[in-house]
Amino acid sequence: MNLITQLSEQAANASRSLVNLESETKNRILNQMADKIRKAASLILEANKIDIQHAKENNLPAAMIDRLLLTDERIDIMAKGIEEIAVLADPVGMLREIGEQPNGLKISKMRMPLGVVCMIYEARPNVTADAGALCFKSGNAIILRGGKEAINSSKAIASIMQQTLASFGLPEALITVIPNADRELLMDLMQQREHIDVIIPRGGEGLINFVTDNSKIPVIQHFKGVCHLYIDKYADLDKAIKLLLNGKTQRTGVCNALEGLVVHKDIAEQFLPMAAKVLAEHEVTIHACKQAASYFNNADILADNDFGQEYLDLEIAVKIVDSLQHAMDHIHVNGSNHTEVICTEDLERSQRFQRSVDASVVMVNASSRFSDGSQLGLGAEIGIATTKLHAYGPMGLESLTAEKFLVTGDGHVRS
Amino acid sequence: MNLITQLSEQAANASRSLVNLESETKNRILNQMADKIRKAASLILEANKIDIQHAKENNLPAAMIDRLLLTDERIDIMAKGIEEIAVLADPVGMLREIGEQPNGLKISKMRMPLGVVCMIYEARPNVTADAGALCFKSGNAIILRGGKEAINSSKAIASIMQQTLASFGLPEALITVIPNADRELLMDLMQQREHIDVIIPRGGEGLINFVTDNSKIPVIQHFKGVCHLYIDKYADLDKAIKLLLNGKTQRTGVCNALEGLVVHKDIAEQFLPMAAKVLAEHEVTIHACKQAASYFNNADILADNDFGQEYLDLEIAVKIVDSLQHAMDHIHVNGSNHTEVICTEDLERSQRFQRSVDASVVMVNASSRFSDGSQLGLGAEIGIATTKLHAYGPMGLESLTAEKFLVTGDGHVRS
Repeated sequence: MNLITQLSEQAANASRSLVNLESETKNRILNQMADKIRKAASLILEANKIDIQHAKENNLPAAMIDRLLLTDERIDIMAKGIEEIAVLADPVGMLREIGEQPNGLKISKMRMPLGVVCMIYEARPNVTADAGALCFKSGNAIILRGGKEAINSSKAIASIMQQTLASFGLPEALITVIPNADRELLMDLMQQREHIDVIIPRGGEGLINFVTDNSKIPVIQHFKGVCHLYIDKYADLDKAIKLLLNGKTQRTGVCNALEGLVVHKDIAEQFLPMAAKVLAEHEVTIHACKQAASYFNNADILADNDFGQEYLDLEIAVKIVDSLQHAMDHIHVNGSNHTEVICTEDLERSQRFQRSVDASVVMVNASSRFSDGSQLGLGAEIGIATTKLHAYGPMGLESLTAEKFLVTGDGHVRS
Repeated sequence: MNLITQLSEQAANASRSLVNLESETKNRILNQMADKIRKAASLILEANKIDIQHAKENNLPAAMIDRLLLTDERIDIMAKGIEEIAVLADPVGMLREIGEQPNGLKISKMRMPLGVVCMIYEARPNVTADAGALCFKSGNAIILRGGKEAINSSKAIASIMQQTLASFGLPEALITVIPNADRELLMDLMQQREHIDVIIPRGGEGLINFVTDNSKIPVIQHFKGVCHLYIDKYADLDKAIKLLLNGKTQRTGVCNALEGLVVHKDIAEQFLPMAAKVLAEHEVTIHACKQAASYFNNADILADNDFGQEYLDLEIAVKIVDSLQHAMDHIHVNGSNHTEVICTEDLERSQRFQRSVDASVVMVNASSRFSDGSQLGLGAEIGIATTKLHAYGPMGLESLTAEKFLVTGDGHVRS
């Protein structure tokens, strides 16, 4: 049996030890993990130093090195994250009444863990703690396959969590770190249909496509975020400007930043000069349809086919539309099913937008930057799904469970 | 553009026409479909005759020909099935409150259609009507790729449903029948990740594995049904005998029939002689562990590794266990996550079983034969999922939808 099959089987066996663990015990263990991570900060920082040194030797970009870097403060945030997960409601065992059948059979549904979750990710060491804690709380074992850049930090963090598990008599295999980032081991991992229930890749589109193409295990995909803000003809323009600025400039390299601005023609003449002014102040590069371009200095004119790009930078694509329907059509063609926002004071139009737009998060008068598990009341997130199977949007504890049917009779047989 | 890409794209476009269709209108259309199917019975029977003739020429087994065969009565049942779906609650647009965040953002979730569902199935013509109606009601377009055996019947049924759609100004591409059962077209179909949201294969394990291995689209899998009945030491033995007989003999070729009988050692001496008697009356072949075999005439002795078979016939595997935990371990190793039943009068033990056993349907004192969408209050089912991603167990209307987040603010921005 190869190493990966062995680790996966151990994880699957370990996951069964969680089925009947009380929420209270899980929470106590989580709080202790947080404690121990704080106390072992110097050990974690030592391991992180090695990763940072390798990263520098390999001339990784500064942004990546920053993501890799741990500090006392970041370790404290990590520990707090685990404590927050301890406070969240435990979905396992939650019952949902379906009803009593005419023959007296009682039907309900009960939430249960998925089993074994596998995360494939790049260089963020905090994913180890977040994903480890989310999976443990939801009753799942987790297999972590991070990029080689963060491998020493990840192992250090996981090892503290494993020690805590062991001290409560639980198997360390509940949190498994794949020992290296070889492609070969990754390929082996994606064949473990018998032991692993779901793979969640986090990273660039290349990684997602690679995993989707090669995995024999169901994959929850998070493709790009091409988010739009639509300024309706009934928009409050002060709100509109606030949403635009926050969505585009508060942080640019993230999937819930705005990449498109769609404006109703009846309000364009009022709104676009205001927008042009604030975007220029923030040095945002403008791409625009011909009609919109006239409101900006130096706008790059976009052909219809060139909309829909994920800039991840201080750039935005501006489009003037004739109607709400036209706006939704534009979003349908150019969006990525991630997050779409309407700015309007008209309730009926906001409801039409929320009902019709196919995106994992559809907002009214709120910044796209709120599209994030921690901002939506999930406490933390293990990923954001941009396809609709199993989960859609930010995934928290509930997304790490399934519902089984419970049927109770009194000797009922079928005729 | 090849034929399959074209059909898939048309289906995807067509699916958008359903987003804002009122439930009432959908129900009226469904009732009219049922009407028209009844009125066109002679046309459908004519097409069916051709399929039956081909089946006979190709010497298909009698059981398969029976599944293919349509009669006036079966057509009426098909029409009634559509009318029942019209009566069910429409999941699309259903809201679930998530809560208000401290900053005042209101968060909820709304059910929405998946988009395009593709069914790959074998020879049952009624799947065309069932799946067509379920997908229409849940706001999805459907692509039907049936086996060549039923192709003329399927086309006739689909064409009546398409005419009804057209008479209401809706696109016929909402119900698409792949014109032939060539492997090549099937391969093309499984590449349409851009247009098709989910593939649901129904049929033997070979078909499911073939689709899982080749599909680029998420697949909802229904593997085999190896269902057990566990007779606890606190079982009511009259109920136990009823559940055993119904589960094993009422219908044998189906996935929710019993394949295994697990008996607590403390009750074996009382129960197994009764079981042996009724099973012998029904000419059920017995496979058994060494200990259990002594209660039967001519039992075939099974080694530990030989349990877990799907007989689909008048055969059953009998195992004596030492404890409830031992029973659950046996089921974990030999079950197929489909349906598992405990017979006991002890509430605490029944709850432990329901909570611990990983199966899509976990029953207390009820026959495994109830594991079926129509028996569990779903009205109808589009399939039974035996993996936990997206759906687990019989899938009805709700399983054909996803939930998106709705976020409503008042100009909220993130700091």
